[in-house]
Amino acid sequence: MKLRTNARTSFRGETLAAGKSHLTPPLGTTFGGGAFRVCHKCPKTRARSGVLRTAHGDIRTPVFMPVGTQATVKTITNQELLDAGAQVVLSNTYHLYLRPGEKLIQEAGGLHRFMSWQKPILTDSGGFQIFSLSTLIKIKNEGVEFQSHIDGSRHFLTPEDVVRIQQSFGSDILMPLDECVKYPSEKSVIEKSSVLTREWAQKSKAARLHGRTTFGGGLLFGIVQGGTYPDLRKRAARELLDIDFPGYSIGGLSVGEPNELMYEILNETLPELPQDKPRYLMGVGMPMDLFEAVSQGVDMFDCVVPTRNGRNATVFTSTGKLLMRGSSYIRDFRPIDEHCPCYTCRTYSRAYIRHLFNAEEYLAGRLASLHNLTFFIQLLDSMRHAIEVDRFLEFRREFELKFNSKGMNHE
Amino acid sequence: MKLRTNARTSFRGETLAAGKSHLTPPLGTTFGGGAFRVCHKCPKTRARSGVLRTAHGDIRTPVFMPVGTQATVKTITNQELLDAGAQVVLSNTYHLYLRPGEKLIQEAGGLHRFMSWQKPILTDSGGFQIFSLSTLIKIKNEGVEFQSHIDGSRHFLTPEDVVRIQQSFGSDILMPLDECVKYPSEKSVIEKSSVLTREWAQKSKAARLHGRTTFGGGLLFGIVQGGTYPDLRKRAARELLDIDFPGYSIGGLSVGEPNELMYEILNETLPELPQDKPRYLMGVGMPMDLFEAVSQGVDMFDCVVPTRNGRNATVFTSTGKLLMRGSSYIRDFRPIDEHCPCYTCRTYSRAYIRHLFNAEEYLAGRLASLHNLTFFIQLLDSMRHAIEVDRFLEFRREFELKFNSKGMNHE
Repeated sequence: MKLRTNARTSFRGETLAAGKSHLTPPLGTTFGGGAFRVCHKCPKTRARSGVLRTAHGDIRTPVFMPVGTQATVKTITNQELLDAGAQVVLSNTYHLYLRPGEKLIQEAGGLHRFMSWQKPILTDSGGFQIFSLSTLIKIKNEGVEFQSHIDGSRHFLTPEDVVRIQQSFGSDILMPLDECVKYPSEKSVIEKSSVLTREWAQKSKAARLHGRTTFGGGLLFGIVQGGTYPDLRKRAARELLDIDFPGYSIGGLSVGEPNELMYEILNETLPELPQDKPRYLMGVGMPMDLFEAVSQGVDMFDCVVPTRNGRNATVFTSTGKLLMRGSSYIRDFRPIDEHCPCYTCRTYSRAYIRHLFNAEEYLAGRLASLHNLTFFIQLLDSMRHAIEVDRFLEFRREFELKFNSKGMNHE
Repeated sequence: MKLRTNARTSFRGETLAAGKSHLTPPLGTTFGGGAFRVCHKCPKTRARSGVLRTAHGDIRTPVFMPVGTQATVKTITNQELLDAGAQVVLSNTYHLYLRPGEKLIQEAGGLHRFMSWQKPILTDSGGFQIFSLSTLIKIKNEGVEFQSHIDGSRHFLTPEDVVRIQQSFGSDILMPLDECVKYPSEKSVIEKSSVLTREWAQKSKAARLHGRTTFGGGLLFGIVQGGTYPDLRKRAARELLDIDFPGYSIGGLSVGEPNELMYEILNETLPELPQDKPRYLMGVGMPMDLFEAVSQGVDMFDCVVPTRNGRNATVFTSTGKLLMRGSSYIRDFRPIDEHCPCYTCRTYSRAYIRHLFNAEEYLAGRLASLHNLTFFIQLLDSMRHAIEVDRFLEFRREFELKFNSKGMNHE
């Protein structure tokens, strides 16, 4: 049995120290505009490394944030998240509001205690989920009425409610309620929606209690919407800047539009955002998208790809994706990725994991998820390291060459 | 985050050393009748502690063996099995023969290598599974014809095949093919079946290659059948003794008969078996059954209860079973069992685990399975310890009193 180790290896084989500082500021600190610090800028792209200070510790960026929608990263324990190098996890206000409910999480002493996770938590407002999962949606200026996808119960949430709920969770990073319009949409639809989203952003900021909770209040980000219309995106960014947030999210991308269009929108939008605030690209994504977005100056990412694809037998390696149900792995006694330090790769062979998927065994999705999470977290760790030693572009080229070497379509 | 620890705590709060010796005899050793040694006998019951030597290490008895039917204990990794104190795992010849197949496991270098488990493995012959899962069964003197429950393919397995397959797996403890008759059955049916099972036992022993495999050949046990007829059980035991095996299994119990009848059959059968050979009660079971069987002199147990019940939200504690979906746990922020050293109990609350079950999250069944495995493995560890300090009966009474204290029906 190989020994567990906390040392993690980058994609180029260098050992990275696992140490992440926990400089927790005193309770009641409001974490205003000074929560983020850029550490190093890439001389050839707009990529940068930085540190985001939260009530539960510092987050070094660029960072990949595992998604724990229902207060759990699917199939994975907290210890495994730590082993994989996770600095922060995501959860979802819509889901947690419906189940187990705001009150229970408060009684538990906040979301960190409820899920026994002591590092930072970012909660999405759940706007995206309200508009994609629930039914009978009625949008008013005051908020949104919807029917729960779980039990059909009716609810009405205002932007103020959504901030209050996240503050009662003790989230370190909060998202305001926003309207999520489907892709593609007419410009006039997006334009109308942008007005509402801006109003809600303003109300959200006003509703946020400054340092009056046990948790210091958390960092409320603004979310830039605007569909695939660069002018609407730019206007949305400028309007949010006027309101002034300690960080900015870019929402409404990776919802079915072509990759090139997403890159173009990023390219038009990011220069509008201030250098000294963190930028979070919501729901993205695939390795090539992550490289492109980092090169344009994005700092934070979340995506369900590592866990969802893992459960569906797709694993990521430095030489591309592997579809683990494939017959080519029946007699493949190598680990998924021989350079990967995760428990899955230290312990089990492709042939064994293929057998588990084939036999519909629970352990299969779990082992694949753990590996994929390690892959994505390390990928962003390696990007950060490459930025800091002025090798980002080279690292990107090397990675892409190797990742695409088998000629598969990876996106 | 609490630290992981290898120290385990018994049910009475004493710390037990996790150390298990790995006195692996040289390759080629045939492990004849001398593989088992009784260490201590209970002065008041027929309970005893012992050591069973196998090619992959010693097993201290009485022992609970987690079930890994398809070369995986459902939802659980090898590291977690070690953390839970597992000394040996079970797997199933019928399942592995069908998927991934004998040849692949041979190519992997045996079952231990295939599943990356370095401690002993016991393989059941799969007789029970052939007769319960497959269809179109035709029993001949030479063996059994059946249709796979996976793909409908037709197969014919002889007792000789079943021994050969297990030897090619490198199993440490092997079971011969036996006919498993449903409960209840007429005495004449059992009588006829007993003749066949005895013949197959004889053929199995003759087919076993002595020390001619890399793995030393493994310990082939005899299986005592005979339904619920004490005289047939006794006769079966005596006939197996004539053939002479290094250990004896008791099959065909815990298949729907009343507990009292099972206890009576054990009471009639066990005295027929030699003191210096290990006794394995197949597929049992629940805590009270384990105590009764140990008190009658059984050494080895396997059961799917910890993992199957875990996945179905039932967990075992020293004060009884908990049904984790119950509303009484919604606000219960205590661990499942505050005396349990498992990762689940060190990390998560009942309220959180209840939420996971309620939200149909994968992690729920995993955390409950890990806890239950720890519970059953420790229960047998504690029985062994109690036997060795001449406190078995007292421990049994204390446990039963506490376990039944909430007035639930635990069986």
